Amino acid sequence: MSLVRVTNFAISLDGYGAGEPQSLEAPFGHAGMKLHEWRFATWQPGAPNGLDALFGRQYDVGFGAEIMGANKFGPPGWQDDPDWRGWWGEDPPFHTPTYVLTHRPRAAMEMEGGTTFHFLDASPTDALVVAKEAAGDLDVRIGGGASTVNAYVAADLVDHLHLAVVPIVLGRGTSLWQGLEALEDTFHIEAVTSPSGVTHLSLTRRSPSA
Amino acid sequence: MSLVRVTNFAISLDGYGAGEPQSLEAPFGHAGMKLHEWRFATWQPGAPNGLDALFGRQYDVGFGAEIMGANKFGPPGWQDDPDWRGWWGEDPPFHTPTYVLTHRPRAAMEMEGGTTFHFLDASPTDALVVAKEAAGDLDVRIGGGASTVNAYVAADLVDHLHLAVVPIVLGRGTSLWQGLEALEDTFHIEAVTSPSGVTHLSLTRRSPSA
Repeated sequence: MSLVRVTNFAISLDGYGAGEPQSLEAPFGHAGMKLHEWRFATWQPGAPNGLDALFGRQYDVGFGAEIMGANKFGPPGWQDDPDWRGWWGEDPPFHTPTYVLTHRPRAAMEMEGGTTFHFLDASPTDALVVAKEAAGDLDVRIGGGASTVNAYVAADLVDHLHLAVVPIVLGRGTSLWQGLEALEDTFHIEAVTSPSGVTHLSLTRRSPSA
Repeated sequence: MSLVRVTNFAISLDGYGAGEPQSLEAPFGHAGMKLHEWRFATWQPGAPNGLDALFGRQYDVGFGAEIMGANKFGPPGWQDDPDWRGWWGEDPPFHTPTYVLTHRPRAAMEMEGGTTFHFLDASPTDALVVAKEAAGDLDVRIGGGASTVNAYVAADLVDHLHLAVVPIVLGRGTSLWQGLEALEDTFHIEAVTSPSGVTHLSLTRRSPSA
């Protein structure tokens, strides 16, 4: 069965998925790269093939589509730049149809490596119908940012989340947990800390989503 | 050297140290006992003598005084009840001079087992001077609640914190992390998850406090 999953989504101890303000120069705001260093470390030559790498590899396996929020695709105002093609160059790391939620959609962009960006002015629920159709038997990844993940969880549309809690305190930003009181009733929550200091949370839905 | 320490302070994944609203019937608000079950479990006959128990025992060792906020001592309005003597009966688990921060101080209460409650209308800094004097060579415990721990950390008065992150989402309450941006610059932060699912954070000050 096709699932809706969040994977390798990094948050701070205080639950922020990015800092602020975000800009072309500071895509993660005042958080800088701190939320993502643990994962980049796994990509270095000779990096340990340990727990962080194991969780990291979940990112690439079994997905047939991604949905992301407008704030992940570009800095504030990217909709005004007709030449903006995302942060990732001509071969983005998605390798599937990738749906960008925006109130100002534009024509689809076919990139190298299997990624095609589609722009949807749609609710989370309606966008998921489109993405599931594209993914077929594979899973749909909710790619972020924090407000998009939060919206999908709040709408009860997610089957599994892998969150990486990085031992930093951001103090401000977009909260992943906002409004998700008693999430433990819907999800089994498992925690394991890696030698890097990152605590990996695996949230598994107790019963299938609708 | 006498240190200022927080130990066995439980928070939710979203950083709340208690739920709301707090009352005589619901001392932890809507959180109920969920933040504390892991620790109570270690007190049961035959409980595993494992990581949770090991962290739990830090509570009793090396302290010569405690400071707590008014909200820990009693439900809202306890100051209007001249007979209120705290939640813990006649033999409270502190066994040291214990300083309750309140704008409406009352006469000290000598309890059994070495606990004496003193009531101070004082700033965190001034209360700490009093508590350190009482503790002598031993440490001072900042006992909570979340706003009191937060105030002491924000005032840069704490040397070590042990926090127990319980895998629940409270959604509302008093945030431990509020305003503590970049705490990782001041503290080394170590995380380890216990088989119970609780992640223990040990925050150790990188240089001695003033």
